Amino acid sequence: MASILAPDGLGPTVCVGEILVEIVATTVGDGFLEAQPLVGPFASGAPAIFISQCGRLGGKAAMVGAVGDDDFGRVNTDRLKRDGVDVSAISIDPDYPTGSAFVRYRKDGSRDFVYNIATSAAARFGWSELVGNLIDRSGHLHVMGSALSVPSARAVIDRAVDIVKARGGTLSVDPNLRKELKLDEDTERRFSRLVAAADLLLPSGEELERAAGVEGEAEAIRRLFEIGVKEIVLKRGADGATYFGSQGDRIDARAFVVQEVDPTGAGDCFGGAYLTCRRLGMSPQQALTYASAAGARNVTVLGPMEGAGTRQELDAFIASTERRP
Amino acid sequence: MASILAPDGLGPTVCVGEILVEIVATTVGDGFLEAQPLVGPFASGAPAIFISQCGRLGGKAAMVGAVGDDDFGRVNTDRLKRDGVDVSAISIDPDYPTGSAFVRYRKDGSRDFVYNIATSAAARFGWSELVGNLIDRSGHLHVMGSALSVPSARAVIDRAVDIVKARGGTLSVDPNLRKELKLDEDTERRFSRLVAAADLLLPSGEELERAAGVEGEAEAIRRLFEIGVKEIVLKRGADGATYFGSQGDRIDARAFVVQEVDPTGAGDCFGGAYLTCRRLGMSPQQALTYASAAGARNVTVLGPMEGAGTRQELDAFIASTERRP
Repeated sequence: MASILAPDGLGPTVCVGEILVEIVATTVGDGFLEAQPLVGPFASGAPAIFISQCGRLGGKAAMVGAVGDDDFGRVNTDRLKRDGVDVSAISIDPDYPTGSAFVRYRKDGSRDFVYNIATSAAARFGWSELVGNLIDRSGHLHVMGSALSVPSARAVIDRAVDIVKARGGTLSVDPNLRKELKLDEDTERRFSRLVAAADLLLPSGEELERAAGVEGEAEAIRRLFEIGVKEIVLKRGADGATYFGSQGDRIDARAFVVQEVDPTGAGDCFGGAYLTCRRLGMSPQQALTYASAAGARNVTVLGPMEGAGTRQELDAFIASTERRP
Repeated sequence: MASILAPDGLGPTVCVGEILVEIVATTVGDGFLEAQPLVGPFASGAPAIFISQCGRLGGKAAMVGAVGDDDFGRVNTDRLKRDGVDVSAISIDPDYPTGSAFVRYRKDGSRDFVYNIATSAAARFGWSELVGNLIDRSGHLHVMGSALSVPSARAVIDRAVDIVKARGGTLSVDPNLRKELKLDEDTERRFSRLVAAADLLLPSGEELERAAGVEGEAEAIRRLFEIGVKEIVLKRGADGATYFGSQGDRIDARAFVVQEVDPTGAGDCFGGAYLTCRRLGMSPQQALTYASAAGARNVTVLGPMEGAGTRQELDAFIASTERRP
């Protein structure tokens, strides 16, 4: 079966969205109400994690976004460059700092955040000549739902979808709708349009039903194929993942057994690996194995994208790691 | 000799300016280009450190500024409340995060920073009913030169100087002109006017000549008294401090010998202690002793204002600490 995604040769996978640093509290507890040990800055932002994993796996990859003119911005651009990601369309904001997220895990596994995203460089980018040059030679666009809450990202995504599709490229969407991010009516409408235009949809858990707008897994899958989605991979964390093809085919993948150090970024690495493997010509089965390995390996290392593996690292991980029963 | 400063009974000392959290790298080195151990958030901002020291010493104290609606803001307001500082005129910005400064010491003792001040809540406050209510019952205004680079702080300071002086209150100025902060022509003019209106001037090292606009210590002192300053205390760090009275009187104070852990905030604690002691009716000699102790004690503790002492703590410090020869 031919891949439903544009091959790597057509041009890079482009991800549009927030680039952040993450600073992690090293003790478990409630919030940041007193001085405490921290570690950071780690390169972060869901779209940046996704594209880092693409680059590390050897896929053509490029990022659209913005950082401040500070060390936190350089942490990100240096990192993505090392991963082989084209950073020509990452702009450097002269006035606003690089976006940041402080994260602390609570005893119950939930998290407290202190964000500076909406009023940081992360949210201040738009269409530019450099962005246009990149999109004109891109083969695939990946969009995170979280980027839709940023007006400037919306403008870039709207234009990029049309250009990339017109040249035979494809689109993947990770709903990535965190509870913290509220969508207004207009954004919800844009989100629905993007889902309908997606060749590949990468929801986590309940995001599947949210994206389909109907309840029940089977019903949601049916509805999504009906509106035009070509391939769906449902991420279930430790419960594994499932590929759904438009012909009713289904592949279940069990999760790898790992010692979790930091769950942040698992879904983004999973998605980046799956998409990249598919664009490199692998079967859904093979892509699902690499994706499961990429997500699992990433949680074994502190930092949102510190555990994103190369192909060699993922091969070694797969060979040495057990799967859940 | 009657104090040249309005007594504590007239109303609180008000400080106007930036409120920040500080996050400190725990290793020495260059900048923040990779993930590293940090500790924070510490309550910070030069004006906030100053007013914290006032409150801890038992002086009437109040702060004008802004924080974000986040844990970093609460770190500051909770801290100042505990110190007895009136926080009624600290506003909470619904859209912008609390200002922040990441600090790392280099091998040579200099520092690298990553700031978010200009585009944070720290720079977004202005005159309000609550600010007006506070200023109308204040006895003294303290201004840091750094606040002059913030347009909204300038507007508050301009208005507050007139009101406080009209009701018999006084003004102190700490030039606090960090190299990082550029002053344009208009700000430089405002700074000169403020210096001329200052009852008490608290320069550090070369700031004395900068404030006077002439070279040479003796010449600078002469010039400052000529334009209307009533009392000058020159801070020289480990080299001690000197009081200059307008009648040509001079008192030198030797510095206390301490193990320096974190120099940030020393000058602000010195100033806050000196001003408070004078407003509480102490002589320049006695105020100079407490001020030297407050600055020295603060550098023995990690965090910009974590070592600010109460009167009891400073008495104990003075009794147990040697002075430099």
